[in-house]
Amino acid sequence: MSLATILSLNQYNIVYNVLSFVIATMLAGFIGFLLIRSSLPAKHRNALTLGTLVMAIADYHYFRIFNSFTAAYHIVGGKYVPTGIPFNEAYRYVDWLLTVPLLLAELVTVLELTPKESKVLISKLVVASSLMIALGYPGQISPVHSTARTLWAAASSVFFVYILYVLFVEIQKSLDKQPEGVRPLMFTLRALLLLSWGFYPIAYILPSFVGGATGIVVSQVGYSIADVVAKPLFTYFVYKVSKLKAEVEEK
Amino acid sequence: MSLATILSLNQYNIVYNVLSFVIATMLAGFIGFLLIRSSLPAKHRNALTLGTLVMAIADYHYFRIFNSFTAAYHIVGGKYVPTGIPFNEAYRYVDWLLTVPLLLAELVTVLELTPKESKVLISKLVVASSLMIALGYPGQISPVHSTARTLWAAASSVFFVYILYVLFVEIQKSLDKQPEGVRPLMFTLRALLLLSWGFYPIAYILPSFVGGATGIVVSQVGYSIADVVAKPLFTYFVYKVSKLKAEVEEK
Amino acid sequence: MSLATILSLNQYNIVYNVLSFVIATMLAGFIGFLLIRSSLPAKHRNALTLGTLVMAIADYHYFRIFNSFTAAYHIVGGKYVPTGIPFNEAYRYVDWLLTVPLLLAELVTVLELTPKESKVLISKLVVASSLMIALGYPGQISPVHSTARTLWAAASSVFFVYILYVLFVEIQKSLDKQPEGVRPLMFTLRALLLLSWGFYPIAYILPSFVGGATGIVVSQVGYSIADVVAKPLFTYFVYKVSKLKAEVEEK
Amino acid sequence: MSLATILSLNQYNIVYNVLSFVIATMLAGFIGFLLIRSSLPAKHRNALTLGTLVMAIADYHYFRIFNSFTAAYHIVGGKYVPTGIPFNEAYRYVDWLLTVPLLLAELVTVLELTPKESKVLISKLVVASSLMIALGYPGQISPVHSTARTLWAAASSVFFVYILYVLFVEIQKSLDKQPEGVRPLMFTLRALLLLSWGFYPIAYILPSFVGGATGIVVSQVGYSIADVVAKPLFTYFVYKVSKLKAEVEEK
Amino acid sequence: MSLATILSLNQYNIVYNVLSFVIATMLAGFIGFLLIRSSLPAKHRNALTLGTLVMAIADYHYFRIFNSFTAAYHIVGGKYVPTGIPFNEAYRYVDWLLTVPLLLAELVTVLELTPKESKVLISKLVVASSLMIALGYPGQISPVHSTARTLWAAASSVFFVYILYVLFVEIQKSLDKQPEGVRPLMFTLRALLLLSWGFYPIAYILPSFVGGATGIVVSQVGYSIADVVAKPLFTYFVYKVSKLKAEVEEK
Ligand SMILES: CC1=C(/C=C/C(C)=C/C=C/C(C)=C/C=O)C(C)(C)CCC1
Ligand SMILES: CC1=C(/C=C/C(C)=C/C=C/C(C)=C/C=O)C(C)(C)CCC1
Ligand SMILES: CC1=C(/C=C/C(C)=C/C=C/C(C)=C/C=O)C(C)(C)CCC1
Ligand SMILES: CC1=C(/C=C/C(C)=C/C=C/C(C)=C/C=O)C(C)(C)CCC1
Ligand SMILES: CC1=C(/C=C/C(C)=C/C=C/C(C)=C/C=O)C(C)(C)CCC1
Ligand code: NA
Ligand code: NA
Ligand code: NA
Ligand code: NA
Ligand code: NA
Ligand code: NA
Ligand code: NA
Ligand code: NA
Ligand code: NA
Ligand code: NA
Repeated sequence: MSLATILSLNQYNIVYNVLSFVIATMLAGFIGFLLIRSSLPAKHRNALTLGTLVMAIADYHYFRIFNSFTAAYHIVGGKYVPTGIPFNEAYRYVDWLLTVPLLLAELVTVLELTPKESKVLISKLVVASSLMIALGYPGQISPVHSTARTLWAAASSVFFVYILYVLFVEIQKSLDKQPEGVRPLMFTLRALLLLSWGFYPIAYILPSFVGGATGIVVSQVGYSIADVVAKPLFTYFVYKVSKLKAEVEEK
Repeated sequence: MSLATILSLNQYNIVYNVLSFVIATMLAGFIGFLLIRSSLPAKHRNALTLGTLVMAIADYHYFRIFNSFTAAYHIVGGKYVPTGIPFNEAYRYVDWLLTVPLLLAELVTVLELTPKESKVLISKLVVASSLMIALGYPGQISPVHSTARTLWAAASSVFFVYILYVLFVEIQKSLDKQPEGVRPLMFTLRALLLLSWGFYPIAYILPSFVGGATGIVVSQVGYSIADVVAKPLFTYFVYKVSKLKAEVEEK
Repeated sequence: MSLATILSLNQYNIVYNVLSFVIATMLAGFIGFLLIRSSLPAKHRNALTLGTLVMAIADYHYFRIFNSFTAAYHIVGGKYVPTGIPFNEAYRYVDWLLTVPLLLAELVTVLELTPKESKVLISKLVVASSLMIALGYPGQISPVHSTARTLWAAASSVFFVYILYVLFVEIQKSLDKQPEGVRPLMFTLRALLLLSWGFYPIAYILPSFVGGATGIVVSQVGYSIADVVAKPLFTYFVYKVSKLKAEVEEK
Repeated sequence: MSLATILSLNQYNIVYNVLSFVIATMLAGFIGFLLIRSSLPAKHRNALTLGTLVMAIADYHYFRIFNSFTAAYHIVGGKYVPTGIPFNEAYRYVDWLLTVPLLLAELVTVLELTPKESKVLISKLVVASSLMIALGYPGQISPVHSTARTLWAAASSVFFVYILYVLFVEIQKSLDKQPEGVRPLMFTLRALLLLSWGFYPIAYILPSFVGGATGIVVSQVGYSIADVVAKPLFTYFVYKVSKLKAEVEEK
Repeated sequence: MSLATILSLNQYNIVYNVLSFVIATMLAGFIGFLLIRSSLPAKHRNALTLGTLVMAIADYHYFRIFNSFTAAYHIVGGKYVPTGIPFNEAYRYVDWLLTVPLLLAELVTVLELTPKESKVLISKLVVASSLMIALGYPGQISPVHSTARTLWAAASSVFFVYILYVLFVEIQKSLDKQPEGVRPLMFTLRALLLLSWGFYPIAYILPSFVGGATGIVVSQVGYSIADVVAKPLFTYFVYKVSKLKAEVEEK
């Protein structure tokens, strides 16, 4: 998929403002998680340490995505026309390569596993998610209605389904081990996870249905919303679980 | 409303310097709240954590607004003439989308509510304020004397009135539960809230009365003053309440 | 007063390097006060919290002043010739509007007043200093030998004299309440205050005596020296007072 | 070796995105090591202090390398053509000059040596590694198939082999002194070290085998991978050793 | 001395990379000293507080020197030709004006003097060093073989010799008061001081012997090496003294 399509003022502005919104959100998430992290007992800080890193990495990438987007267009006769400088789709995939393992590790910190179980689980998930992302990228940069795009997506989806299945099972298994009161939070966490992860392939596939400029807009907005849910919101709920556990322990 | 109007040197300078003033203010607020936050007992830090985020988000947006404003004009023959690069009004609305819920949550931390009551109240306020902002935006970018502008403003105002009503009632209810000495501060807080929030629709509507360049100036200055009152000043008073509560508790 | 005068290489370089010097000084002051602040007992940190904010605000403004100065000139035939982009005198006034109240509040923290007395005194000083600055600005941007320049300066000076008088009296009154050993520091503090504050109107008036390019240079250098004395040096002495008080208390 | 070769879009993008990936990784490493550092007892923080510095230095250099790379090319007719601004290969060597001694010192902190032994070992390693880097650089900037390139590499390799030999022996010797459970981590550490260090001369020599544009790509990607293993990953394992030691001690 | 001389690629690159090396070094020094500072008991942190400020100030100036250097040249026909934008020699002198007093104060913290003696000594040194720097600057910007250059250098050298003499004597006197084990460190400190301070006048005088482009290179490299020894390395040894003293005290 290429961005070399003329955008109307409105279309350009929507993407522009959504990207800026995410920059501000990740910045606030970064500072916020940093501050509330230190209010947790040392033992329970791991999830927020990871979440803080996710915020920093994502903010860096959204800043770059924003700049790449504004460099890719200039205003000509009341419309935004491609400048010839290509929009760099790869930033998102590089971002995921770094943030997805960190987010998975965040989740694992609250699953009440033994260190050994954690290690095995994280390893499996990191390998699978790296494959999911690496296989998705060639599709992302293929033409919208090409077979290549569909095939790469299919290959990527195998690992996508595998990860969600594993996580679903593991969260389920952990429910019994959770202290009182944490259970509803685990359900929310699972819902957030499925919801936000599901958004990424949808944002990927949308340009095939809504073509041209609209496709670009819905895809960028879709990825951005998914990132806000999967990163700061998800981390916030992991924090709530960590905090509850710390409180239960203290008693 | 569009900014595509010639500004005199003075008009341009007023907006320019007011925007820069707000950048410096939010920066100082950010650092200041960060520093005094750590002097509060952990339990009472929440309001300042939120206030710190508000400062960071607002500083980011004012920095962007400033750059958008300077890019929108260049000096030609002793006057500031539009460059054709549009001034991005949306930054303010994106800012509010993030900061208004945080400021409302700040206020709720000092209302002496149960966790459950807090949650319900915040939810209501966040929904209402999001609607207020989302409905106001299409009006903001409509031509000054258009019906659209008036209608969107009216729709937005419904939620505006609702929020102020709810807050008025809640602050009133909380007065009895407040520790000795906090009450006068709660009155100040309420006054600041009504005063600053009331400024936003006024800044919105002013260009309809004072047209052209003057309209741009009063609107930008109005929003800026409102932001200084509603963000750092309001947070400062919430801090004073938190501090007083911490002191009362300690005894 | 306008900067639209040709500067020699030396004249330009003096202003350029003095502005850069102040940027570095405020940066160092910011970091330094931040670090030594945490070595004071919590109760005595207020002055340094305020001083840190002053450093941040001033650094921001000197960075802008520096950029405004370099944008206002370019080298043509071995001389610095105005580019047509106006030098923004207002940054200094915006800076004062924020830093003067903070510096006054810094001083008040060491005057051994009751909270109530402090509040009254600060209020008076903030109002008076805001008027002094606001009335001075229209004069600053008036032509050098104009009556307007003189009249605004006169109006501004009324509040200037009032503030210095009030402070002189208050410092005097506080002397008896100060712990052993603090007294000489209070004298230094008073001297620094009078000395540095006196510099500002002098820097303002100098261009009337030494005209053209020289006037610009002495004025900018004068304001810069005044700022180094009134901000970091003054804060450093307030810190010494705070520290001495903390030590006395500990015993 | 010079970069003055036309790159295809894909070739350019690979280098571009890998460099950006490393920037984000070093940033995350910097923040992450800073945060987990404070969770260790003061006595065991040294390795992470050093690791934090390595991250900061490397991030600075990758930021510069990235900018140098993008300035060295511009898009002309769907290809990336050299702009004439030379790509600065020296950043990597300056980086190593600073980070290699720090990384070696990191390793030494976990070798259970007496202070005196540590000092002697570090001195030897710093001298040898400085020579290795200083002798390698003239080769790096020599034409790909020149004798100069080979000779400098050979001279550099003498010290390379010497360092690896010394480290191999020292790690071996330290094994007996390590507390229970640390041994497997020391093996991993050794493997990481050999693996990543071995990558640098390979990235250096690769352009001789795969010429032109491909040579540039594999070399930059090779160096980047090596840096991610030798810096953050290596530091992470040193951290794990430090942490284990701290835990053993506590008992 | 002026930089308006054509530089070869190699000559330009040496200065360029050395300046960048110093930027990275000062950055690492800043972070490193900040981190190890907090591991010292509060009473012994002063030297590192000062050292941290020196790093920040120097990093700021090297960043500016680097930018001034790159702006002063552009590549024309395989050589670096002056652009006409003058290279700003003054940054170094402004840097010294701020960092030399701080470094002298650093040294004084470990001389085991009474507060009163410290104050007197620092005052003398600050005055003398300010004169040394202020008198050296007019020579620095005079033509290489001019009498002016020699005379200013001579005047500056009087204070240079005076300072080194005073420090030599004071370090000597302090030796008896130093706790066991600190003495050898004091010798190192003295050696570093003499060595690095001696480098500055050498870097100043070198262009008179090695003319033109080579003169520029050796001078810039000379100043840079001197700064790395006199700032981070010197501070590191002052830190070692402080640490040893803290350890001795604890026992
Ligand atoms: C299935 C699928 C995809 C899935 C992507 C996902 C699930 C990304 C998740 C990213 C997250 C969680 C980021 C958080 O920081 C792709 C690659 C779009 C390609 C099409 C098929
Ligand atoms: C009623 C109304 C409005 C109200 C805006 C308000 C009340 C904004 C408050 C913002 C705050 C408090 C920001 C703090 O960070 C609009 C949208 C201008 C549109 C016209 C009608
Ligand atoms: C009397 C007078 C003036 C006084 C200015 C002063 C006294 C400024 C003080 C600023 C400080 C203390 C800043 C610290 O951050 C003006 C406005 C130049 C105008 C002319 C008359
Ligand atoms: C043997 C050899 C080399 C080795 C380089 C190495 C081993 C670099 C290690 C760098 C590290 C560990 C950096 C970590 O930050 C060169 C100079 C490429 C030149 C060719 C011969
Ligand atoms: C004698 C002499 C000089 C000495 C300069 C020195 C001694 C500078 C020291 C700087 C330091 C220590 C900086 C640390 O941050 C000059 C001015 C070059 C001019 C020629 C004569
Ligand atoms: Na553009
Ligand atoms: Na993303
Ligand atoms: Na402009
Ligand atoms: Na706003
Ligand atoms: Na200029
Ligand atoms: Na000022
Ligand atoms: Na380019
Ligand atoms: Na490298
Ligand atoms: Na240049
Ligand atoms: Na220097």
